[in-house]
Amino acid sequence: MKSNPSISFIGAGHLAWHLAPALDNVGFVVTEVYSRNRAHALALTERLYQAELKATLDFSTSKSTVFIIAASDDAIEEIAQEIILPDEAILVHTSGSQPLSILQFAATPNIGVFYPLQTFTKAKKVDFGTIPIFIESNATEAQQLLTSIAKTISKKVERIGSNERKALHVAAVFASNFTNHMLSLSQHILQQNSMSFDLLKPLIVETINKAIEIGPHNSQTGPAKRGDNNIISNHIEFLNEDEKLAELYQLISASIAATHTS
Amino acid sequence: MKSNPSISFIGAGHLAWHLAPALDNVGFVVTEVYSRNRAHALALTERLYQAELKATLDFSTSKSTVFIIAASDDAIEEIAQEIILPDEAILVHTSGSQPLSILQFAATPNIGVFYPLQTFTKAKKVDFGTIPIFIESNATEAQQLLTSIAKTISKKVERIGSNERKALHVAAVFASNFTNHMLSLSQHILQQNSMSFDLLKPLIVETINKAIEIGPHNSQTGPAKRGDNNIISNHIEFLNEDEKLAELYQLISASIAATHTS
Repeated sequence: MKSNPSISFIGAGHLAWHLAPALDNVGFVVTEVYSRNRAHALALTERLYQAELKATLDFSTSKSTVFIIAASDDAIEEIAQEIILPDEAILVHTSGSQPLSILQFAATPNIGVFYPLQTFTKAKKVDFGTIPIFIESNATEAQQLLTSIAKTISKKVERIGSNERKALHVAAVFASNFTNHMLSLSQHILQQNSMSFDLLKPLIVETINKAIEIGPHNSQTGPAKRGDNNIISNHIEFLNEDEKLAELYQLISASIAATHTS
Repeated sequence: MKSNPSISFIGAGHLAWHLAPALDNVGFVVTEVYSRNRAHALALTERLYQAELKATLDFSTSKSTVFIIAASDDAIEEIAQEIILPDEAILVHTSGSQPLSILQFAATPNIGVFYPLQTFTKAKKVDFGTIPIFIESNATEAQQLLTSIAKTISKKVERIGSNERKALHVAAVFASNFTNHMLSLSQHILQQNSMSFDLLKPLIVETINKAIEIGPHNSQTGPAKRGDNNIISNHIEFLNEDEKLAELYQLISASIAATHTS
């Protein structure tokens, strides 16, 4: 087997913060980090064995094979068009919502996507072993290389196309961002009434355990599921001082009712 | 200390299914179970040491002190007005959304609320030790007795009034029922695209762990939080075949944006 390919990161946000050291730790050398935010790039190099800070997108003399764009979605296309790459470079992005084709005008024929499905925050350590990584590429060799890299850090690596990845990303927004916002709204309601969010924690843990165990469709409970319109009107009246919140309550309840009667 | 008071249950649904055996196990004798649904009442008596099936709401010769109405919200008022109780009976309901005063026309001056904040399903065992129980009563002695009963099964017992309990119940609908529905919608989106809900499980677990650890307001991530309107429009377009779902995506995103810019 050939020696592990070296890797460069373009972008030093939440994902790169966790992914670059994870790859470094299993024996890939992360050689370079570039970010428009120099301080972020510098901080990330300090988490790595021998990575250098890159000041420009000119990677023509780089020893890396794989170039991972871990930047915000809006920046990917521009980076792909500006980056100067060595021969045989593989350029990948890490976005759930962008198609592979956003890299089509890059100066390499080998493009791909390396999408770890997780929510990343710098302050919170993550275990890549349990994080599914989704790979896409236009080239067989690149596909194989990206898959083998992903498999060194994750037990769950799958190949999916751009359309499926978009569906997955939309679903993830519901499952993670929107779920979290429901918790945030419950926290807000309790705060308005001088109660602590801690009171809800056992309920939240049980709700999620049950949804994971028997599936969320089967585990739905509550007034909207039961069609208990008295409680629903009662709650909407309670929320009425905050018109937007009352509207949200109404709409989500209607969505639950529609799901469970159709 | 006097011997443990005996308890009767009116209602044999999900809550009674778990609460009656929990009380039985710590030394309270559950003497009687009544339910409009005779089969449910009978099944519950079989989970208890010496409970009898009651065929009517005439408890005038009952040996119990505490009568727990664990029925649907709509049925509580009628039960309270029909039930015939022995002297010194304490009549309580277990509803988050109903005030104490719904019991005011009962044939006893001692009324209360015994509200365990959890989602109950018959098939899923629960550990009452971690479930907060909220007590309210109009009478000091009843308040004390209900509190001491709650403390034998739960480590978290609090006294709260009817208004606070209603706020808590509304918050619980967001934290449990609505959170679960967001998972259900993500499951639906994946199914529409022939993918498994299992793919999202690590993301969901991490989302909830983070919200519990650092608080949901602090742990919010995603396009709406970042104000990434390109992704938002892109996702809404993706969902557009299902108008209601697209509307929900839009409204929840707007709510996240409003929460994190104000």
